[in-house]
Amino acid sequence: MKKVKLKVPATVANLVCGFDILGMAVHAPYDEMELRLLETPDIIIKHTDSFGLPEEPSSNVAGIVLVKIQEYFNLKNGFEVIIHKHIKPGSGLGSSAASAAGAALGANLLLGNKLSKEEVVHFAMFGEELASGVRHADNIAPCIYGGITLVKSTNPIDIIPLNSPDLFVTAVHPQVEVKTSDARQILKKNISLKSAVEQWGNIAGLVAGIQKNDFSLIGRSLNDVIIEPVRSILIPKFDEIKEKSLQLGALGGGISGSGPSIFMLSEQKETADKIAQMMESVYNEIEIESFVYVSKINPAGVQIVEES
Amino acid sequence: MKKVKLKVPATVANLVCGFDILGMAVHAPYDEMELRLLETPDIIIKHTDSFGLPEEPSSNVAGIVLVKIQEYFNLKNGFEVIIHKHIKPGSGLGSSAASAAGAALGANLLLGNKLSKEEVVHFAMFGEELASGVRHADNIAPCIYGGITLVKSTNPIDIIPLNSPDLFVTAVHPQVEVKTSDARQILKKNISLKSAVEQWGNIAGLVAGIQKNDFSLIGRSLNDVIIEPVRSILIPKFDEIKEKSLQLGALGGGISGSGPSIFMLSEQKETADKIAQMMESVYNEIEIESFVYVSKINPAGVQIVEES
Repeated sequence: MKKVKLKVPATVANLVCGFDILGMAVHAPYDEMELRLLETPDIIIKHTDSFGLPEEPSSNVAGIVLVKIQEYFNLKNGFEVIIHKHIKPGSGLGSSAASAAGAALGANLLLGNKLSKEEVVHFAMFGEELASGVRHADNIAPCIYGGITLVKSTNPIDIIPLNSPDLFVTAVHPQVEVKTSDARQILKKNISLKSAVEQWGNIAGLVAGIQKNDFSLIGRSLNDVIIEPVRSILIPKFDEIKEKSLQLGALGGGISGSGPSIFMLSEQKETADKIAQMMESVYNEIEIESFVYVSKINPAGVQIVEES
Repeated sequence: MKKVKLKVPATVANLVCGFDILGMAVHAPYDEMELRLLETPDIIIKHTDSFGLPEEPSSNVAGIVLVKIQEYFNLKNGFEVIIHKHIKPGSGLGSSAASAAGAALGANLLLGNKLSKEEVVHFAMFGEELASGVRHADNIAPCIYGGITLVKSTNPIDIIPLNSPDLFVTAVHPQVEVKTSDARQILKKNISLKSAVEQWGNIAGLVAGIQKNDFSLIGRSLNDVIIEPVRSILIPKFDEIKEKSLQLGALGGGISGSGPSIFMLSEQKETADKIAQMMESVYNEIEIESFVYVSKINPAGVQIVEES
């Protein structure tokens, strides 16, 4: 394989109660990435979008991943990557993870699958480190494995793919800025054991619900007593959107990653669509532009669109 | 039905990382309970064992449950209960839960199954409240539902039965006293968010492992960074027994309930038996008497032995 074109999906990290451990792939939005193996050792990054992301390899999320893979295999080849980014940076929908995961997975395909899935995750994490300063895999793991994933540990890498429930995801990205570093700093360093026990009851319930395909249990477990009450303050209209979503029939939902995007899970497409309209109109009222996406949970993760 | 004889199993609460939410039924040890519906409103408790437990209904764990059920249904009937207790009080193996669950389940059978399983749990919790001052269901739930259970909430009662993996349990009860109230007081009221995240990664992994029947994942998840490091101090030779059990091939294990019993899970009976011998000899060396039990995880919970 000399060239590969990939569809790289957005991802929702944390899944309400699963702070820093759970993540889920969706179908929309997604990036397109074209990767080509070069005979020369150059690493060339081209963005067709207008987000103004740096294209210098060591400053680019996809670029740094390719640099690390090139170093690891001591390659004489280089890579050219063309990124059509549709997942907006700073949305909380795994934009940097998509670039990083797409680069690692694409390079591995071009090199004949020399890397295991865990190793692909390992290299993709260099991109997340560049983007946020933290080597985390909450978004990378579902992007690569698809469905819902549990990152049990990143050192060593221990990723547990969970089921992919047949549910619809509505995500709204209001055009306000929430820096990941701010969203992290605002958290309390210590929590009460009582809250922690409540949280891990919800996590256990969520994982059981996912594995049993018990949608009611998933809904009952989508409660976060620790992170959401603090972080939601940074997101305009969070409480209203959550309340109205539940009234419209959502199973549950909350902040996507560290925000500002909000996601909701529904059993029916009709419900998911109604929630999307409601979200848009809530933000319209306060004159905040927003982008809304409705899709199913994505069981596959990154997909190969073309190869040659 | 006028009379019923039950086999009521011991239970292991917490399951290492699942403090206050997870529990598991075993086959050994177990209590035998005979319940009889009386024409008079008397509640008569008889113990055939020599533990010296009070037999006055309002002071007896089984008695208080029957009093509450009698009140709830405004019954003219009473109950006679004969308890052959083999699960030693104070062992951390769910001795009080067995009396409470057996009483609630037995009375419900005698009354023609008027109560739902959740209601049986509700009444059994009065027994736990009497025994420990806390209305918890960590032991009652697996005793009644069998296998491994998640107590997502006790108010309202929300019990999630999980799978019952085909594993062997070795439990040792060293003859030292650990009061539940001491074991609870010793815990820190606040914990770091970092530890909490590690803990809920393990809980998510444990529940996923149980549901996927992935024994290796169960083993990797049986880690407790919050409760065990504090409580294990109260149990002589805890670290040595844990280390040697893992060397002998245990998947993992830890404190049963609030101790002093220790449990270990193994895939093979041979391993479970070797661990039992080791446990006994470790306590022999320091002249602490101990009782050791080997059995499979009990998928059924309370069993009816005889009815008439």
